[in-house]
Amino acid sequence: MDSNQYLDAEQARFVQELLAFVRIPSVSAKPENIPDVVRAADWVAARLTAAGVEGAEVLPTDGHPVVCGHWLHAGADKPTVLIYGHFDVQPAEPFDLWDSPPFEPEIRDGRVWGRGASDDKGGMLVPILAVESLLKTTGRLPVNVKFFFEGQEEIGSPDLPPFVAANVDRLTADMIFSADGLQYAPDQPQIVEALKGLVKAEIVVRGPRSDQHSGLHGGGIANPAMALAHLLASMKSADGLVTVEGFYDDVIDLGLDDRAAIARIPYDEVSYLAETGAVSVFGELGYSTRERLWARPTLDVNGLTSGWQGIGSKTVLPAEARAKITCRLVAAQDPAAVLAALAAHVQAHCPAGVTAELLPGQGGAGPFLVPSGHNATGVAAQVLEEVYGKRPYRTRLGGSIPVMTTLLDVLGVHAVMFGFSHDDENLHAPNEFFRLEAFRLGQTAYVRLLQRLGG
Amino acid sequence: MDSNQYLDAEQARFVQELLAFVRIPSVSAKPENIPDVVRAADWVAARLTAAGVEGAEVLPTDGHPVVCGHWLHAGADKPTVLIYGHFDVQPAEPFDLWDSPPFEPEIRDGRVWGRGASDDKGGMLVPILAVESLLKTTGRLPVNVKFFFEGQEEIGSPDLPPFVAANVDRLTADMIFSADGLQYAPDQPQIVEALKGLVKAEIVVRGPRSDQHSGLHGGGIANPAMALAHLLASMKSADGLVTVEGFYDDVIDLGLDDRAAIARIPYDEVSYLAETGAVSVFGELGYSTRERLWARPTLDVNGLTSGWQGIGSKTVLPAEARAKITCRLVAAQDPAAVLAALAAHVQAHCPAGVTAELLPGQGGAGPFLVPSGHNATGVAAQVLEEVYGKRPYRTRLGGSIPVMTTLLDVLGVHAVMFGFSHDDENLHAPNEFFRLEAFRLGQTAYVRLLQRLGG
Repeated sequence: MDSNQYLDAEQARFVQELLAFVRIPSVSAKPENIPDVVRAADWVAARLTAAGVEGAEVLPTDGHPVVCGHWLHAGADKPTVLIYGHFDVQPAEPFDLWDSPPFEPEIRDGRVWGRGASDDKGGMLVPILAVESLLKTTGRLPVNVKFFFEGQEEIGSPDLPPFVAANVDRLTADMIFSADGLQYAPDQPQIVEALKGLVKAEIVVRGPRSDQHSGLHGGGIANPAMALAHLLASMKSADGLVTVEGFYDDVIDLGLDDRAAIARIPYDEVSYLAETGAVSVFGELGYSTRERLWARPTLDVNGLTSGWQGIGSKTVLPAEARAKITCRLVAAQDPAAVLAALAAHVQAHCPAGVTAELLPGQGGAGPFLVPSGHNATGVAAQVLEEVYGKRPYRTRLGGSIPVMTTLLDVLGVHAVMFGFSHDDENLHAPNEFFRLEAFRLGQTAYVRLLQRLGG
Repeated sequence: MDSNQYLDAEQARFVQELLAFVRIPSVSAKPENIPDVVRAADWVAARLTAAGVEGAEVLPTDGHPVVCGHWLHAGADKPTVLIYGHFDVQPAEPFDLWDSPPFEPEIRDGRVWGRGASDDKGGMLVPILAVESLLKTTGRLPVNVKFFFEGQEEIGSPDLPPFVAANVDRLTADMIFSADGLQYAPDQPQIVEALKGLVKAEIVVRGPRSDQHSGLHGGGIANPAMALAHLLASMKSADGLVTVEGFYDDVIDLGLDDRAAIARIPYDEVSYLAETGAVSVFGELGYSTRERLWARPTLDVNGLTSGWQGIGSKTVLPAEARAKITCRLVAAQDPAAVLAALAAHVQAHCPAGVTAELLPGQGGAGPFLVPSGHNATGVAAQVLEEVYGKRPYRTRLGGSIPVMTTLLDVLGVHAVMFGFSHDDENLHAPNEFFRLEAFRLGQTAYVRLLQRLGG
């Protein structure tokens, strides 16, 4: 039996294991789910050991734990490969928009439906299964492999930088592959050459000491919710330009070659609108939608909260109003500089009659841009072309994987995104799903990747 | 024993009764409290009967019930007086800001602390106790009295207009006094000559079909929370002028006499800011704070909701964002016209890339302005001067009592606000309280009012 036959023979079991993994509600953002994140870590360590990986263990950080393991018997002449993924998931709210409960996964239409099925439980299981198939059928791996799985990617990996710095020996590798990554379409691979950086913050606008009667005090004092609206509106123009002073200062603008490369990849705006349900595209003038999505920095409001939000009405003038915001950064923006620009803007544009404060969020990341000619990226592209029978598109991604920046900073290695999710799989949204076909194809791809790297 | 001695002798019992009344969480805005509103209605009907009032009964509406009762044996030559109040209360959230639980009332510093103690359970109990003292000590009342208590004032009395229209005989009176009203200060009475009207609505801005990943879609499509900020900011200028087209069209501007009358009443901005905790006053240029509070229309945001509002972060581009808003109206603004202006503004200023809708709220009210020379108002002013030893200020109020407009429309009678709460008593806010001194003084005042009207 070769590894491919093994994968076919064991696939039904693997799918059941994925369902079990998704059933653990390892939501890293919610304090009540801390024990579930630990349970997920334990599950991953046990699964690594079952696959034949050595030294699999759960390691503490100041927050959610990390799981590491390794197989290092390929020989000193073979490269060492670090494989990354994450076992935490996004919150599943609002629950009522799910067709089936987010943590009671179901298989329908050849897909696993549940929170984390695609991002990244399905994804991170793929290389474990590939390694298992090689170890169980050949007794060895073609290269030295280290696994590095984390439980805080969805909150920006705040505790990873000190962990990585303190565990350089454990993580050192010649190449890094991230099992948290996307393919362009089920029949079209891609190589992701850039990730955006991330900055998080919360704006708090405060007015009266406590909520006030809107009749007795309306017109007398400022309304923090209205003031927040003015403050947010001052940060982005009506046509989508970020108007925070200095925001674009360090952005490396797209060259003609970059724009041509992006324009070569098919883009169907009708499909994009159908996928998202938006009435139209929207954003910074002078750039195509693809360019904005892939290579321009953004400022988005992730949440608003103020005053009465229940059924019916409560005629209050609220004491405060809050907005959670994130900026996605492109090379060569610096997260600290952007955060400082946001804070300065909030102070400079604080509306009359209220106070305003910018609270920096945990877990930022610098932008990530793979150098052209990067060797591991070239090998990954060859493998994808073999497996899919098509040349991969060279794309960029609007998302952020903060630990990629950390690994680059500490280990000096650019990671290659080698994952098999798709961006239509409702990542971070209700009704997340993962294609079982991609789950299987990814296993083959990882086997070939390891073989090619060792051969 | 005269009625005054009776009131003194029974005061301790009356205070215990007020505590029992406040313990009923009759929050009209929350569906889960519907049975509590009914319990409060039953309590009121029983209390009326115990006071010697006849025909006390709970009457249905399409929503929360009404309680009526009467004593009509004063004779045809005596006027019939309708006394109004409400037994529903505002929601008590946020609970954690209360020093003692909102529905477990406590007496501290000569005050009853609890939701509804002042607005309006303490207030509406006052005339019942005054009537009881007269009936128990003299066996009769100096005038014919009808009571009309409702359970939906805090949600704008949506079901009262049809109820009033269908119960004209039950409610017809020569004069109306509202036990839901404020005195200027514990040592200074007032006659409220105007109430503001009220319009409620919710603005809903919709973008993608469901919450999206802010990295994968940020910069591609509009963000509904940011769009809502732009839309709200378009409705009010940075210096507090409402910029909804046509909003001020029907406003009767203050005359020189009106402004002089308002200016004669002492106003201490330092105290006002200390009371609210706001850093400064704020609002429409060209008017004093008092003028804005009392006699200028307002537009306030009562609540904002969108996306992720929990602890930490969720990097979503939200599917929708909502703002609850209310406008307080002054003569001669028309609620329907203002609602239409708001709806037209939302359509005209809908930001690119999203849809926006204005959902009208239940329970609006027209503004209320008592004609100068109104007889019942004159009698009330005399009684207040006797009881307080000071001439009442002639003031206006930024709040709204929608049923006052309904009664004016149907019965043709302007109500007189004859209540003994104060605007520093945290009405609609945490730590609401009612002064026991005012509770007692109000009873005397109502006794004298009925005596003077009958004498």
